[in-house]
Amino acid sequence: MELKLGNHRITLEAPKGSNGVLVKNLYLSCDPYMRGRMLDFHASYIPPFTLGSAIEGFGVSKVVDSDDPNFKKGEFVAGLTNWEEYTLILNTGQLRKIQQDDAIPLSYHVGLLASGAVGQLVGQLAKLHGCYVVGSAGTSQKVELLKNKLGFDEAFNYKEESDLEAALARYFPKGIDIYFDNVGGPMLDAALGNMRVHGRVAICGMVSQNSRTDTQSFKNIFGVISKRITIKGFLQSDFLQIYPRFLEDVTSYYKQGKIVYIENMNDGLESGPAALVGLFSGKNVGKQVIRVASK
Amino acid sequence: MELKLGNHRITLEAPKGSNGVLVKNLYLSCDPYMRGRMLDFHASYIPPFTLGSAIEGFGVSKVVDSDDPNFKKGEFVAGLTNWEEYTLILNTGQLRKIQQDDAIPLSYHVGLLASGAVGQLVGQLAKLHGCYVVGSAGTSQKVELLKNKLGFDEAFNYKEESDLEAALARYFPKGIDIYFDNVGGPMLDAALGNMRVHGRVAICGMVSQNSRTDTQSFKNIFGVISKRITIKGFLQSDFLQIYPRFLEDVTSYYKQGKIVYIENMNDGLESGPAALVGLFSGKNVGKQVIRVASK
Repeated sequence: MELKLGNHRITLEAPKGSNGVLVKNLYLSCDPYMRGRMLDFHASYIPPFTLGSAIEGFGVSKVVDSDDPNFKKGEFVAGLTNWEEYTLILNTGQLRKIQQDDAIPLSYHVGLLASGAVGQLVGQLAKLHGCYVVGSAGTSQKVELLKNKLGFDEAFNYKEESDLEAALARYFPKGIDIYFDNVGGPMLDAALGNMRVHGRVAICGMVSQNSRTDTQSFKNIFGVISKRITIKGFLQSDFLQIYPRFLEDVTSYYKQGKIVYIENMNDGLESGPAALVGLFSGKNVGKQVIRVASK
Repeated sequence: MELKLGNHRITLEAPKGSNGVLVKNLYLSCDPYMRGRMLDFHASYIPPFTLGSAIEGFGVSKVVDSDDPNFKKGEFVAGLTNWEEYTLILNTGQLRKIQQDDAIPLSYHVGLLASGAVGQLVGQLAKLHGCYVVGSAGTSQKVELLKNKLGFDEAFNYKEESDLEAALARYFPKGIDIYFDNVGGPMLDAALGNMRVHGRVAICGMVSQNSRTDTQSFKNIFGVISKRITIKGFLQSDFLQIYPRFLEDVTSYYKQGKIVYIENMNDGLESGPAALVGLFSGKNVGKQVIRVASK
């Protein structure tokens, strides 16, 4: 494929022998974990970004040229790519081929059907499993969406609560059985203070912790003993072996209207940096995606 | 049974219809958790002590009189009793009858074979299961005991370490698989900073936390996610159904010389308060027990 840049012509190809694919990036995912890759911290599950190189992130892309026999020109893939228009992906093992489905927009493969948009999906899946679900968000608009669009039993605006522990006690007078943590910090502490005996805490993110070595204060940590709480951190990448089942289940729930999905789409690669920063002040409503191109 | 107090004679009996037992207390257990019962904090697994009443705690006692057909005069029991010479125990369901065994001193039923003395036993059981075991203690004498008497691979004096995280990194250059926590606070934080991926933390006590609502600072809490750590609090009382197996196994290990046990015995009920306070400055070497009477 040839690309014109002013008077220049650039040939876009996956070099012979590279075993790579050259892709056109369509949708890029904005995720809070990316903030952590901007720190010079190498002990995490994913290395820091390289200064002077394109930002890496999850995306949906279209194969433009391929030197890997498993991928053909014109196919759509989801996986790690770069924040740029075209990317030569050498590590093709991490790419997942997308089976196109008219009922499922391509961009959903970086949201509903992948990492990101975790909170909205967790709450809906919990409802489908019979739980009483209370969500927390940072604007009244989002609180309304949680209750009226996503079907949570209750939701509250954490910015309007001067005492998070008391807020949780109001919604869970008998205590919390399962707390799904995406934020860490004071909300995690407030949840520990409200857990029931043998309660379980799944820790999936700590977006409130800007630095991985920020000091965090807890006053309810003793509850881990007295209430025999289990706290478990997890990463999606440990469970790739059951991803096919997840994809099948969630696609089916979505098509049956049993779950809904809220996406915050911004247009143009140039909108990327502001969209990423916006995650940390809660500007986005739903999963934040950048549309680089639509086909 | 009659007791003389000066010119008075007191008849000691379990009143008819009480279903209780009157016991003579022989050995009383001093445990860090008792500090928590001196706070007006009712949300724990055990209520506060009652002002003006005798202190309650674990002990080994001899039945003096019984209105419960399950217990006979002269039998020895272990369970909750009071810090006094004689106690009328009405809740006899929690008492465990002791099968006398010449190789096992009676006092071991509040230590080696019950709650308390946790750290020394955990480390030895871990060794028997093939672990590399490092202990931490607060005096050089105790460090020597851990290494030379209990057979830990290594031990260090935490009071001599200015950086606990660095100390743990020295003993665990490849990281910690299992951390058994009895102390909480800075040691827990240091351990979190040194855990391996999928490491496990068993939380059994937090003796460093004097108040259950002390604020504790953690700088390594993010590691719970990045290293997918599991933290689980537990209480011995949740596992009473497997206590008979524990009793059999530990008795057998002890008789075979596979585990040793260090006891710190103080004489006389009047030595109780100082012995209890001494736990928190580490005065005791081994399990702290008060001998009220020997038979």
